[in-house]
Amino acid sequence: MDTPDTPLFVRACLNQPVERTPVWFMRQAGRALPEYREKRGTGSILETVKDPELAAELTLQPVTRYKVDAAVLFSDIMVPLNAIGVELDILANVGPVIFEPFTDISHLSRIRRYEPEEDAPYVQEAIRLLVKTADVPVLGFAGGPFTMASYLVEGKPTRTFAKIKALMHQNQDFWFLLMDKLSELVVASLSAQISAGAAAIQLFDSWAGYLSRYDYEKFVWPFSKKIFAELSKLPGPKVPKIHFGVGTGAIIDLMASAGADVISVDWRLPIDKVRQMIGRDIVIQGNLDPAICLAPFPVVAEEAGRILKAALVAKEAETDSAKNDKVSGHIFNLGHGVLPETDPDTLSGLVEFVREKTGHK
Amino acid sequence: MDTPDTPLFVRACLNQPVERTPVWFMRQAGRALPEYREKRGTGSILETVKDPELAAELTLQPVTRYKVDAAVLFSDIMVPLNAIGVELDILANVGPVIFEPFTDISHLSRIRRYEPEEDAPYVQEAIRLLVKTADVPVLGFAGGPFTMASYLVEGKPTRTFAKIKALMHQNQDFWFLLMDKLSELVVASLSAQISAGAAAIQLFDSWAGYLSRYDYEKFVWPFSKKIFAELSKLPGPKVPKIHFGVGTGAIIDLMASAGADVISVDWRLPIDKVRQMIGRDIVIQGNLDPAICLAPFPVVAEEAGRILKAALVAKEAETDSAKNDKVSGHIFNLGHGVLPETDPDTLSGLVEFVREKTGHK
Repeated sequence: MDTPDTPLFVRACLNQPVERTPVWFMRQAGRALPEYREKRGTGSILETVKDPELAAELTLQPVTRYKVDAAVLFSDIMVPLNAIGVELDILANVGPVIFEPFTDISHLSRIRRYEPEEDAPYVQEAIRLLVKTADVPVLGFAGGPFTMASYLVEGKPTRTFAKIKALMHQNQDFWFLLMDKLSELVVASLSAQISAGAAAIQLFDSWAGYLSRYDYEKFVWPFSKKIFAELSKLPGPKVPKIHFGVGTGAIIDLMASAGADVISVDWRLPIDKVRQMIGRDIVIQGNLDPAICLAPFPVVAEEAGRILKAALVAKEAETDSAKNDKVSGHIFNLGHGVLPETDPDTLSGLVEFVREKTGHK
Repeated sequence: MDTPDTPLFVRACLNQPVERTPVWFMRQAGRALPEYREKRGTGSILETVKDPELAAELTLQPVTRYKVDAAVLFSDIMVPLNAIGVELDILANVGPVIFEPFTDISHLSRIRRYEPEEDAPYVQEAIRLLVKTADVPVLGFAGGPFTMASYLVEGKPTRTFAKIKALMHQNQDFWFLLMDKLSELVVASLSAQISAGAAAIQLFDSWAGYLSRYDYEKFVWPFSKKIFAELSKLPGPKVPKIHFGVGTGAIIDLMASAGADVISVDWRLPIDKVRQMIGRDIVIQGNLDPAICLAPFPVVAEEAGRILKAALVAKEAETDSAKNDKVSGHIFNLGHGVLPETDPDTLSGLVEFVREKTGHK
């Protein structure tokens, strides 16, 4: 039975009946769009997000152009940390840079309690503006504690995660206190976004897949679980939760058991294989390789078709109660963010392709 | 039954009886060693390898210091390409850089047939010197065709592999010709190293794990399979073949079925999980996270102990014929190369730890 009052995207996240598979793209508001490059200028993202009207406008650009089914807030995972006074910047072509990396347990006093309405009212204000104007649901988000911690400890993006891995083993007091503080910050941030009107949220634990399964299970997973549990206690209608990481083949079953409604996977494993690994009841988001979007459109369509087929095979493995021809168990997305060199027409074509291939006659 | 004429490392690769688990480290000859930094100076690695006496000396430094069970040749996966005239360099803290990246099928004429004894006699000469002087077997190696191609097409190390992934889909004539040529080069290179006395070889397809399973199976796996099949036809005693990649959880069963005797895995999946995924008859190499080696030694020992325990659990899953208490089915290694900032004493201690824990009383 359709429930037309609830948006398609939210129903899909909750494994409820849908008229077709919804689609959105991570980093859909970003440098691939000429209208984004024109509007945003060259300043720091951290400044841009402080202007709620501008943030709302940037959020809507890809909704208008691509016709995606969710408006992911234009923001950054480092915004709450910056808002409580951790000195950092997001550098173009680099990523987050921390002016004084966290190396000693005494540095943790720099992470004070995050009060979203006082520290970063502009985030919630942008969501409130969007709720009034957008005709698709607004998706809020936060960084996973490990992913934020990796920047705080390494000081910048890393390929080896050497400092943070050594630290979590050798200084566990530091590690668990840091995780506690970051988890609290995440819960505060996501709760405020939900209060402001976010219809769903995504936890970007982008780099969790760089850890061994053992390290993930001991040092990270308990905090993701706690975050999702806290969010589940919020009053009001159920707001679906999405759990995202890259290269997570070794930990996907753990991530899927942390309490989210949707697990978002990169391009490495086909969706039908992921379904075999995580059980039957969680929705899968993904999983086109963003690099494929740089190829000519026929290639993109072929790959997208393959993914939709794998999602159908995955559906066969669902529980009888979920086995409903109006339930897809799938949200179409890329496996990671849109690459800046992507042709926007490719993404428009991709949205149309998914709509046509999955829409009920 | 012991076969003392065959070195421990070679017997372990072939799943024959061993008195203990052998251990070596990828990039054991390298910047972590003060004696390496002193000897090598600041020139390009490509120049250093052209001096066989020096290459042999650098190869032996970690054998002398760490007491590892194999001497992996000091060289680089890009040496054969450079030797046939592809202009490139290996930049410190960057990696391989190609002066004119390969973007058009016409560029493939730059990859001519590799004749090891004419184009790079110094590689074989270094091996011949080592065979005379080293008291452990010499391990030769080559880059996997995909990994070499990624540098040729991208022009430098990449995080997204965007150009090469788009290219393999949109210009398959280019792709398959490139793979054919690189596979031929790999077979020529490894055959010559074996003729010169290499007792085992490793194929470094380091970046294969960045591909989707679908792309790996279609665009890369057939070439790895062909390479191992060609090497199996060489006359003389069986020379074991090791197949290596990072982040290969989504393709590990495919990699393990390409024809190598040993599959080398990074730190993400515990060895007992890997054993479940790849069947019973292939030896597993790995899998300590190189980042862990930056922690104090008790942490390193704890993690190494956990890996040895997982290897024992994995052994339980082996075939009855292989279930011999003198067969470990495991070669201890890191999951990727030694990080330059590693304390050499940590690696010495690690070798001793593995010897003590796995040696038969």
